[in-house]
Amino acid sequence: MKWKQRTVNCGELRPGNDGKLVILNGWIHSRRDLGGMIFFDIRDRWGITQIVFEPEINAALAEKAKSLRSEFVLWIEGTVRLRENPNPNIPTGLIEIAVGEFGVINKAKLPPFDIADNIDTSEEIKLTHRFLDLRRHSLQKNFIIRNQACQTVHKYFADNDFLEIETPVLMKSTPEGARDFLVPSRINKGKFYALPQSPQIFKQILMIAGFEKYVQIVKCFRDEDLRSDRQPEFTQIDIEMSFVERKDVLSMAEGLMKQLWKDVLGVEIETPFARMSFRDAMTRYGSDKPDLRFGLELASLSDIVADTEFKVFSAVVKSGGEVAALNAKGCADYSRKQIDNLTEFAKKYGAKGLAWIKVKADGIQSPIAKFLSEDELDSIIDATNAKEGDLILISSDKWMRCYTILGALRLEIARQTGIMDRVKGQFSFHWVVDFPLFEKDEETGEFNAMHHPFTTPNDEDIDKLDTAPDKAYARAYDLVVNGAELGGGSIRIHDSNIQRKMFELLGMSAEEADAKFGFLLEALKYGAPPHGGIALGLDRIVMTLAGTANIRDVIAFPKTTSGLSLMDGSPSEVDIEQLKELGLDLLKR
Amino acid sequence: MKWKQRTVNCGELRPGNDGKLVILNGWIHSRRDLGGMIFFDIRDRWGITQIVFEPEINAALAEKAKSLRSEFVLWIEGTVRLRENPNPNIPTGLIEIAVGEFGVINKAKLPPFDIADNIDTSEEIKLTHRFLDLRRHSLQKNFIIRNQACQTVHKYFADNDFLEIETPVLMKSTPEGARDFLVPSRINKGKFYALPQSPQIFKQILMIAGFEKYVQIVKCFRDEDLRSDRQPEFTQIDIEMSFVERKDVLSMAEGLMKQLWKDVLGVEIETPFARMSFRDAMTRYGSDKPDLRFGLELASLSDIVADTEFKVFSAVVKSGGEVAALNAKGCADYSRKQIDNLTEFAKKYGAKGLAWIKVKADGIQSPIAKFLSEDELDSIIDATNAKEGDLILISSDKWMRCYTILGALRLEIARQTGIMDRVKGQFSFHWVVDFPLFEKDEETGEFNAMHHPFTTPNDEDIDKLDTAPDKAYARAYDLVVNGAELGGGSIRIHDSNIQRKMFELLGMSAEEADAKFGFLLEALKYGAPPHGGIALGLDRIVMTLAGTANIRDVIAFPKTTSGLSLMDGSPSEVDIEQLKELGLDLLKR
Repeated sequence: MKWKQRTVNCGELRPGNDGKLVILNGWIHSRRDLGGMIFFDIRDRWGITQIVFEPEINAALAEKAKSLRSEFVLWIEGTVRLRENPNPNIPTGLIEIAVGEFGVINKAKLPPFDIADNIDTSEEIKLTHRFLDLRRHSLQKNFIIRNQACQTVHKYFADNDFLEIETPVLMKSTPEGARDFLVPSRINKGKFYALPQSPQIFKQILMIAGFEKYVQIVKCFRDEDLRSDRQPEFTQIDIEMSFVERKDVLSMAEGLMKQLWKDVLGVEIETPFARMSFRDAMTRYGSDKPDLRFGLELASLSDIVADTEFKVFSAVVKSGGEVAALNAKGCADYSRKQIDNLTEFAKKYGAKGLAWIKVKADGIQSPIAKFLSEDELDSIIDATNAKEGDLILISSDKWMRCYTILGALRLEIARQTGIMDRVKGQFSFHWVVDFPLFEKDEETGEFNAMHHPFTTPNDEDIDKLDTAPDKAYARAYDLVVNGAELGGGSIRIHDSNIQRKMFELLGMSAEEADAKFGFLLEALKYGAPPHGGIALGLDRIVMTLAGTANIRDVIAFPKTTSGLSLMDGSPSEVDIEQLKELGLDLLKR
Repeated sequence: MKWKQRTVNCGELRPGNDGKLVILNGWIHSRRDLGGMIFFDIRDRWGITQIVFEPEINAALAEKAKSLRSEFVLWIEGTVRLRENPNPNIPTGLIEIAVGEFGVINKAKLPPFDIADNIDTSEEIKLTHRFLDLRRHSLQKNFIIRNQACQTVHKYFADNDFLEIETPVLMKSTPEGARDFLVPSRINKGKFYALPQSPQIFKQILMIAGFEKYVQIVKCFRDEDLRSDRQPEFTQIDIEMSFVERKDVLSMAEGLMKQLWKDVLGVEIETPFARMSFRDAMTRYGSDKPDLRFGLELASLSDIVADTEFKVFSAVVKSGGEVAALNAKGCADYSRKQIDNLTEFAKKYGAKGLAWIKVKADGIQSPIAKFLSEDELDSIIDATNAKEGDLILISSDKWMRCYTILGALRLEIARQTGIMDRVKGQFSFHWVVDFPLFEKDEETGEFNAMHHPFTTPNDEDIDKLDTAPDKAYARAYDLVVNGAELGGGSIRIHDSNIQRKMFELLGMSAEEADAKFGFLLEALKYGAPPHGGIALGLDRIVMTLAGTANIRDVIAFPKTTSGLSLMDGSPSEVDIEQLKELGLDLLKR
């Protein structure tokens, strides 16, 4: 089939091109019949240009145009001219093309939904017809941002003498934390590769191999029970450096963020970012990834209520727990029902209940006031800096849970009171540092690595591995913006003996450690340099840049929360012969 | 542990830095004791710098240095000074560091092999200790080249307004040609994802979605019985463009090659590249990826011997086969044994035998001379342009096999006669075009797609799909350099009906086509633009740039030919519980 190639795209013509003969290629975006003329908006990746057919001038051509439908693919030859009714909302809105000749390159069935924003169509239909949904410029914009971000990453690290090195996708299964996706080997029947949850061990091996500065934009995989903001495959900006201290990794990441925000949004962000200890983040904001665009800080009440007559509080403090409060500014007029809803909300985070105190013009109003002394009440109001019109929400629980509940309430109050809307478009970057090395499983009493088993303890805490591992702090750091974790990293263990001790503390037998990580333990013996790095979530970074809360808006072909790709119908059944070749059989139900 | 961070790297000091106090970090590369002094070469990614201990000046320090061993990791503080015995072979060879202070950052076990080139160690030991093998600068160089190549790719396509878009790694299994690697789904038991053999369908979907210009450096996977130059995972530069003709894709790829050779090697290559039809490539060079750095062209003898008394030849011609010859220039003195070896070599490519004619000073010498007339012999010598001292090798077989045999012999003769050595360092790029759309399986008579089922036939051949599909030519193209295929591509089918017909011709029922490719057939109905692209093999490009014939030299963590990663021991057995979760069981043997 013959068709003419574009000489210009649909986003570039301006009044200065008046009178120019041009050819466009693109899709029919919309049609209007007006005053005897037929107008079409033609769309390509770069924009939208109006074309016009005039029956009075060329009746045959206009007649032929009547059969055109939405999403037909056309070539159009015509002359640029100024529009009588300009559209100031689009860059090409001052001109139009008087069509001289055109052809249909391809027809289109009637789409199941309009190529437009805010359409009333189910997510399912849109994902099934992803090739149509992706035609929306508002969605394409995210992939243009994603591409810009990737270009900045490539250039920034090249300028800083890093090497992009590819690590294997087919690797050894060493499940830690999340489940591995497995890949059966046909040549080695009964054996399996795993898809990487991260290239962690391989990037450490690259440091041991002397590459010194490594970066990779890399797909990672986790076979998790999916939540709405998780995908089974996701993309990391993976970074590792040798002969570095924490400050070096942090400033490298800060420089990248500064460059990204500048290149993509034209926004100057201040570096270095503030650093906050894990403990501070929890006690002041109730989160290890606090949103610092607004205050609403928490306050510990444990000292105040340690000896109160009100046993609900004092018993918690005596058993080592915590009592703390959030001042919900200006919420004193919350109804009983609103407070009940907050209590229900808190219960989702493990709260057994929620105490509250309203500070009203006519004094305090609270179901627990009668159990507290005047002094205690005054101290609470003082500690929370509560003023008339405020609502104090109090949680008493184990330390971690107490603050987690209040942290969740803090965000909920910020949403309900409009704070979240007001801070939109602001970016508050900071580091959370000084994490504990381990977290203790409340039920089993076992240690889990707070980051991962390759994170080194603080130098001064190395001895604690033998005496009080739960008191050891890690040289780990998380990068946080607006309450979302953009990434995390650490200085790694570069001593084989300490690495072995870590595995031991995590409940791994020597045999198990050797079977899973023997090659790392061995590699560490041959002159491993001190090294550290960070992994940044590209999907999350692009979401922040694009201003969307939906991860599916920044992934071209996302999966549903049940891991389905609705467009291609994967995962799907395979031939039993194919399984037989792999030495596998389906388990009978 | 305390250590001092480098102020300079091991590759940057020059005589101009004489007298400067510096700190180095690096590995002990080698040691020499000379004239009472102890010299170490210290290595990092950027180079090697000599440090020196002088017992006469600081006895304690020199004593401490005696315990240092190969591959220990050190920090060294000292003063730059000019060497008494300069080493002109390395950039830092004019200076050394008089050590003032140093510390061992990490010790190293004695490595199983020296960190040096041309060591006599098995590939197996090197792959098991890949982290040590990768410390060789000669191997690291390849990854620096690979990184440079990737940076050029990113920049070139960004400059040309392409978007880097990620396609899924977990996709639908649609085995075509090679086998898919499968990934069992835990959430959807009994169902499987596949790893992409290429993002072919997804990049076409991106064109249908209106992205117009797509590029991705992307991992692809093939579960093949491995050959020495194949890896189960490999990397492609994957490109697709909308509203294009063949010329557009070709010139985009040519521009990339030009930029790559310029950026990485500083070599200017001429564009556009020559184009040669598949038929020309086969009949003149016996290969669809001919090495054009040298001549040794083939000659058809079919016309000459069509009616010869020598039935071995004439019968082949009469049955539609081909008789053709290679003039092995200057090989008339090959011994009987050498010619026997060539015959054995030819048999590996399916030859039943090999006829030969030596052109000697005293006339022709050949076992088949007595069966041929004087005229026929003269014509053969004429057709092959044979001179005194030449050896004519003649193959008679089915057309394809006849030329494939001669093409293999052509390369073998070039190796044996030293031509291959002489052309080293030259680059001969060209396109092979005008491929047949199908190849017919000799045994089953079934059609296979010569490239893949998404390749469009020539416009003028569309009707042949109904009448004589084996006569149809494809709008496909391969990029070839020095006898290696760097990549291939085509203009794609953008008409759902033609795509369906292609599947039909390939022996797929309508149901099968719908089950496997229904989403593509559907997408093509909604206004698919004309589009085409190419996939270039990054591993192969880097091999060519680095001048290595071993793919394992350009992949950081390669697998063996049996798909094993010797370093991490993958693939490995997994817990039966893990399989149960996936709804799988191992087949009993």
